[in-house]
Amino acid sequence: MSMQNTSSHPLPPAAELERRKAEAKAWFENLRDQICASFEAIEDEATGPYFPETKAKKAGRFNRKAWSRKDHAGNDGGGGIMSMMHGRVFEKVGVHTSTVFGTFSPEFAKQIPGADINPNFFASGVSVIAHPWNPNAPTVHMNTRYVVTSKQWFGGGADLTPVLMRRRNQQDMDSQHFHDTLKHVCDAHSHLADYEKLRKWCDTYFHLPHRNEPRGIGGIFYDYLDTGNFAEDLAFTKDVGRAFLKAYPPILRRNMGLDWSEDDVTEQETRRGRYVEFNLLHDRGTLFGLKTGGNVESILSSLPPRVRWP
Amino acid sequence: MSMQNTSSHPLPPAAELERRKAEAKAWFENLRDQICASFEAIEDEATGPYFPETKAKKAGRFNRKAWSRKDHAGNDGGGGIMSMMHGRVFEKVGVHTSTVFGTFSPEFAKQIPGADINPNFFASGVSVIAHPWNPNAPTVHMNTRYVVTSKQWFGGGADLTPVLMRRRNQQDMDSQHFHDTLKHVCDAHSHLADYEKLRKWCDTYFHLPHRNEPRGIGGIFYDYLDTGNFAEDLAFTKDVGRAFLKAYPPILRRNMGLDWSEDDVTEQETRRGRYVEFNLLHDRGTLFGLKTGGNVESILSSLPPRVRWP
Repeated sequence: MSMQNTSSHPLPPAAELERRKAEAKAWFENLRDQICASFEAIEDEATGPYFPETKAKKAGRFNRKAWSRKDHAGNDGGGGIMSMMHGRVFEKVGVHTSTVFGTFSPEFAKQIPGADINPNFFASGVSVIAHPWNPNAPTVHMNTRYVVTSKQWFGGGADLTPVLMRRRNQQDMDSQHFHDTLKHVCDAHSHLADYEKLRKWCDTYFHLPHRNEPRGIGGIFYDYLDTGNFAEDLAFTKDVGRAFLKAYPPILRRNMGLDWSEDDVTEQETRRGRYVEFNLLHDRGTLFGLKTGGNVESILSSLPPRVRWP
Repeated sequence: MSMQNTSSHPLPPAAELERRKAEAKAWFENLRDQICASFEAIEDEATGPYFPETKAKKAGRFNRKAWSRKDHAGNDGGGGIMSMMHGRVFEKVGVHTSTVFGTFSPEFAKQIPGADINPNFFASGVSVIAHPWNPNAPTVHMNTRYVVTSKQWFGGGADLTPVLMRRRNQQDMDSQHFHDTLKHVCDAHSHLADYEKLRKWCDTYFHLPHRNEPRGIGGIFYDYLDTGNFAEDLAFTKDVGRAFLKAYPPILRRNMGLDWSEDDVTEQETRRGRYVEFNLLHDRGTLFGLKTGGNVESILSSLPPRVRWP
């Protein structure tokens, strides 16, 4: 396990570093395209029953929207592309890529490894949050990223959040399939990824302290991955993305056609409230984005569409 | 204007301080009873049209629930009473009183005036947040409190949040009535309350920086009020509570019977999302409560019942 808060590997020469940035960015955008294609295929396959609020019974398609940002000092700070879909299976799903760079504000630099030495940063990544209409179908989150300060590392993970309490246990078929798929990818890269550690890291991170509740049934989470071998670190990160494509679509296909009750909808909307609480009170990515002047529409696009605090 | 971050008046002798605490607490509980009675009377008067989701067409009644807490060191830390109503006019309204005491944790003490000298604290207050069913009727918030550390002061305020953009302007009849009522109470206590300053304080506080939007149309906000004359400070705080009873019920009566469209409901639920964002990202009271181990159910009872992030 080479994942720790501060890696000791020096940065490569500038040209090599630029090549790495470009390679990571290209992968995240490639993965984005694969995920969008996979989710649109699910929209095509769906045969109902449909949620009453699903006005358009036809298959959804992703809508892309570019945004750009200025950095802390007013210079070009990169940007991203939001891909949103509101379909008949997916009530709301965002698959976003972003590549941002610039300098951290002085107070923020203190919190980021390596940014105390040099406030310049580069961060490229892809993130997915899917909220299906059907209460039987769990919400899912996946994110992988490549960050460069005076250090460079990968981070990411994936976690599953069933919205019905009766489906919210580790013995559930969906939970097991999700965990197994992620375990498989860690085991294939065991020299750098200790599955049990990454699973625990996920449980620790996606915890609501004010309610003393887990957000969902877990998954994996990693950060500050820098073994000194960029190719291997990227290969693992790629396989986490590919694992997501094996983990989630089968779960959705199993559940998207099931019937539900009015009570299930209330439970879905209530449980989604916990998702909002987590993202706005605790999620580092959300708070990081809002504090660094990221794209509000993109950052908050993770919030579920219908929510209830009864 | 005597409202500043640190007052320089010494605390009175212990017996007098206890008398003040008891008097403030008794007032907050008295005001709670008046507000609950006023809101139940509105439930009695209502004649529809009712929101389709309002299953019970009969008048709502408040339901009271006590809670208690342990302080940071595990000792009795006081508690409070939640009064919640889900009626035919009020979709969700909470009128809460709490009286808590104990010691602040060391890291928290740094943020509270006077707590750096002595970590003991006492805080008593009443808070109201009302979310009516009818999208024409604005959401309202009111809170007043008495705090004792090695200093003692009052704080509070009231603000109005229309959930339809077409009603969200300072020329609106409801906005004007709300502001006029609060101006009147400040003018009656002008030696300690500068209306323009308190109104601006409210605008500054109830602002969503990440969206650069105001939460609503404003009101007044004050804190650290300690003129050296407890009786006068309490009298102003009482009048703010009484002003609330004059400010909000007429607004509700004017709007609770109006018709609405499906688009109005979408707008209401979307605008309520901003309320959630404010409370979870920025509201000091919410974050203070969650960090000091307050009652989660009570703290988060301010969140609107139906919300949408489209």
